[in-house]
Amino acid sequence: MSDQDSNDPKALAGASKAMLAAIAFNSDGLVPAIAQQADSGEVLMLAWMNREAVEETLETGYAHYYSRSRASLWRKGESSGQTQALLDFRVDCDGDTVLLLVNQKGVACHTGRHNCFFRAPRDGKDLTEIHPVLVDTAKLYGKGSDGS
Amino acid sequence: MSDQDSNDPKALAGASKAMLAAIAFNSDGLVPAIAQQADSGEVLMLAWMNREAVEETLETGYAHYYSRSRASLWRKGESSGQTQALLDFRVDCDGDTVLLLVNQKGVACHTGRHNCFFRAPRDGKDLTEIHPVLVDTAKLYGKGSDGS
Repeated sequence: MSDQDSNDPKALAGASKAMLAAIAFNSDGLVPAIAQQADSGEVLMLAWMNREAVEETLETGYAHYYSRSRASLWRKGESSGQTQALLDFRVDCDGDTVLLLVNQKGVACHTGRHNCFFRAPRDGKDLTEIHPVLVDTAKLYGKGSDGS
Repeated sequence: MSDQDSNDPKALAGASKAMLAAIAFNSDGLVPAIAQQADSGEVLMLAWMNREAVEETLETGYAHYYSRSRASLWRKGESSGQTQALLDFRVDCDGDTVLLLVNQKGVACHTGRHNCFFRAPRDGKDLTEIHPVLVDTAKLYGKGSDGS
């Protein structure tokens, strides 16, 4: 890991203005955000952020997204406890995607798997579930929750 | 690496129908696709795929995307030579994002950097370029190219 790969949480907290200026939000005011486990490199999930989610993530040090189904700010783990502590926040060449390096507590996927990308071709025709369920979702979410 | 993490290129080539059925394309007929370097875990880029791009990627074993700016199929590296050989193709829990594990030839980013996510907060306020330019873009692209 080079010095350029390292980060300082204080540097993230003060960078909301610069980050918001660098992001090209789409016509819905959203940008796709990839969450990657910082130490292993595992791609955990993709979600969407609006301006408020970017600010809250940088300022609190925990991943916040915009829930398109609920049309509201979503603090990852607010009901499940499966939070994502922020280690770095990067924006791509065109400003239309962001990459969050995080430390995932528990599991990222609402199905109880560590990451969301668990279906892949393995038998020459159909998709196979390649990652196991690690946590019973009934234990993750209270009645009436939609899995955050 | 467990057996479930491994893949067989022949299994990918035959799985177009199952993969297309699993993907929830958006109202524009597109799905975001994350390209990850298979051995290192480096997140290289995010691009978009339509149905044709999914089929071409699985059947040829090389990443194809849909260029929103050109409104046409885009074989990654068609002008630059910086191709992505496909090692695995996964779809997420909701079917609205795919993850390609690839072997990147050369650099993924049209700026000549190995990946597109090269801007991050480092000084407490502004964004810093954290990855170097490895390839002169004038050598990557012929006159008139828009960088594919």
